[in-house]
Amino acid sequence: MSLSITVLGSSSALPTSKRFPTAQVLKIRERFFLIDCGEGTQIQMRRYNLPFSRIHHIFISHLHGDHIFGLFGLLSSMNLMGRKATLTVHAHATLEPTLEHFKKYFGTELLFPVKLSPFPARRQKIIFEDKQVTVITIPLKHRIPCSGFLFREKKLPLNIRKEMVESLKIPYPEIIKIKNGADYVSAQGETFRNKDLTLPEIKPLSYAYISDTAYKEKITDILKGVDILYHEATFLNADKKLARDTGHSTALQAATIAQKAEAGKLLIGHFSPRYKDVSKFVDEARSVFKNTFAVDDGDVFEVKESRVLS
Amino acid sequence: MSLSITVLGSSSALPTSKRFPTAQVLKIRERFFLIDCGEGTQIQMRRYNLPFSRIHHIFISHLHGDHIFGLFGLLSSMNLMGRKATLTVHAHATLEPTLEHFKKYFGTELLFPVKLSPFPARRQKIIFEDKQVTVITIPLKHRIPCSGFLFREKKLPLNIRKEMVESLKIPYPEIIKIKNGADYVSAQGETFRNKDLTLPEIKPLSYAYISDTAYKEKITDILKGVDILYHEATFLNADKKLARDTGHSTALQAATIAQKAEAGKLLIGHFSPRYKDVSKFVDEARSVFKNTFAVDDGDVFEVKESRVLS
Repeated sequence: MSLSITVLGSSSALPTSKRFPTAQVLKIRERFFLIDCGEGTQIQMRRYNLPFSRIHHIFISHLHGDHIFGLFGLLSSMNLMGRKATLTVHAHATLEPTLEHFKKYFGTELLFPVKLSPFPARRQKIIFEDKQVTVITIPLKHRIPCSGFLFREKKLPLNIRKEMVESLKIPYPEIIKIKNGADYVSAQGETFRNKDLTLPEIKPLSYAYISDTAYKEKITDILKGVDILYHEATFLNADKKLARDTGHSTALQAATIAQKAEAGKLLIGHFSPRYKDVSKFVDEARSVFKNTFAVDDGDVFEVKESRVLS
Repeated sequence: MSLSITVLGSSSALPTSKRFPTAQVLKIRERFFLIDCGEGTQIQMRRYNLPFSRIHHIFISHLHGDHIFGLFGLLSSMNLMGRKATLTVHAHATLEPTLEHFKKYFGTELLFPVKLSPFPARRQKIIFEDKQVTVITIPLKHRIPCSGFLFREKKLPLNIRKEMVESLKIPYPEIIKIKNGADYVSAQGETFRNKDLTLPEIKPLSYAYISDTAYKEKITDILKGVDILYHEATFLNADKKLARDTGHSTALQAATIAQKAEAGKLLIGHFSPRYKDVSKFVDEARSVFKNTFAVDDGDVFEVKESRVLS
């Protein structure tokens, strides 16, 4: 199994002919999550063959237009395509009047439930949890309330070594216990250690989405060890005052967060169109955090699960 | 001089990876008019190098999302680009609550005036007029109130033959009269006919935009002799019942309107994505009206002014 991110839009507030406004699709444990929904999200989803029907949860970081104006068209199209399944939009409660306005004026024929699941802007909160995945909000520092998201796979049950089950004739109820970490004591009273009965555990993967925000070092605590970190980098370090004044980060700041969080990989995006050459963002970030990549629309970043040898 | 239309979006309600929802830019007598504003309009305008700052009037045919959801992003971007000039949105009065909602929740930092200029849905009305151009609404037949638009160049003053001014020594006040059609009587009492003093008149051009509508033959009266007619063709004739039920037209019906209106050229678009092969629309329409073209995103159609020899 693997975790992958498809970038649908990588521009900051002003889209260009090559960069749509912000949106991403995260595939994690076979779930497809849409993160932010800038104008043209539905068009990019078609272009990159992402299935509308597999989206059941949309996570909205904040209510600036470049992160939300694609929502209405997406909902309309899902409806035209005959959707019946509930769609949950996770966002600050301030989205409610806009969602209600849409339903009243443009969604009178809406045939599937669109549910707003509001979350607080000022504190971390688990806003999604099922057997496989947890999603936690991360309060950020922008001109309006804004939250990042940390998507974490849960630990899978251990894989038992088949040859041990067979040779020791381990009964079924004991197998379940072993998968959850227990040692095994045979009928003869002999103890077998769990690590000798099972394959090395599969390390759960994680992805963090941090946009939009001024530099906020405190977030590195919760990001510690994240496999892939997306962090906005609207400006270059030369414009760090402008970054602070507008509630954004520089490439250097994004890299500093990645370094302090000991992230596996850093993705940067949300570039201001004032800069013509994106390679400058990468150079600046790599001076602090080597494993940095600038995202383009349509890019797919993937990380595969691996077994941890203890 | 010439009149040109750039197609920004040519899909019906469901966009595809190759067709954005409906929007067009008409250039007429050096004015740029935006007609409808489907999601992604601002992205397509950048792609096709259409200047945001030259747009002062937007004409909205009706309030279905695929004709309007690009408006909010466009307004936001114009603002970010430092616009100061008033933007007039010509639409049915029912747009007002949506425009107000946008201003309240997403346009608090809007630094230029956005003015709604409402027009009635049920009757023809001149909704724009300056020295060069007139715009008239055309009531259509859709599931909700919907209006087409007829854009008409005004007659230009006649071009006087320079050699006649010189040889006859025509005084300036008389030149003005001649440009407006008068004959000239010299000091010696000799009469010179206007047509001998001026170049043949330049025929004013016209463009009609008809989307969305069921077949409505009555509109051919006002469309008579239009140079370019855009008429939606969502369906093929085989699905004409579906067309009627949903308030749309077939390619055959669009062509019939063009033929009865004696249009110069017919453009068809707003194709339902149920059909894979657009050439079928063209074949069907050309069986009735030969000069038919199916539009694609990015297409530019131009007609040049010509002098009419009487």
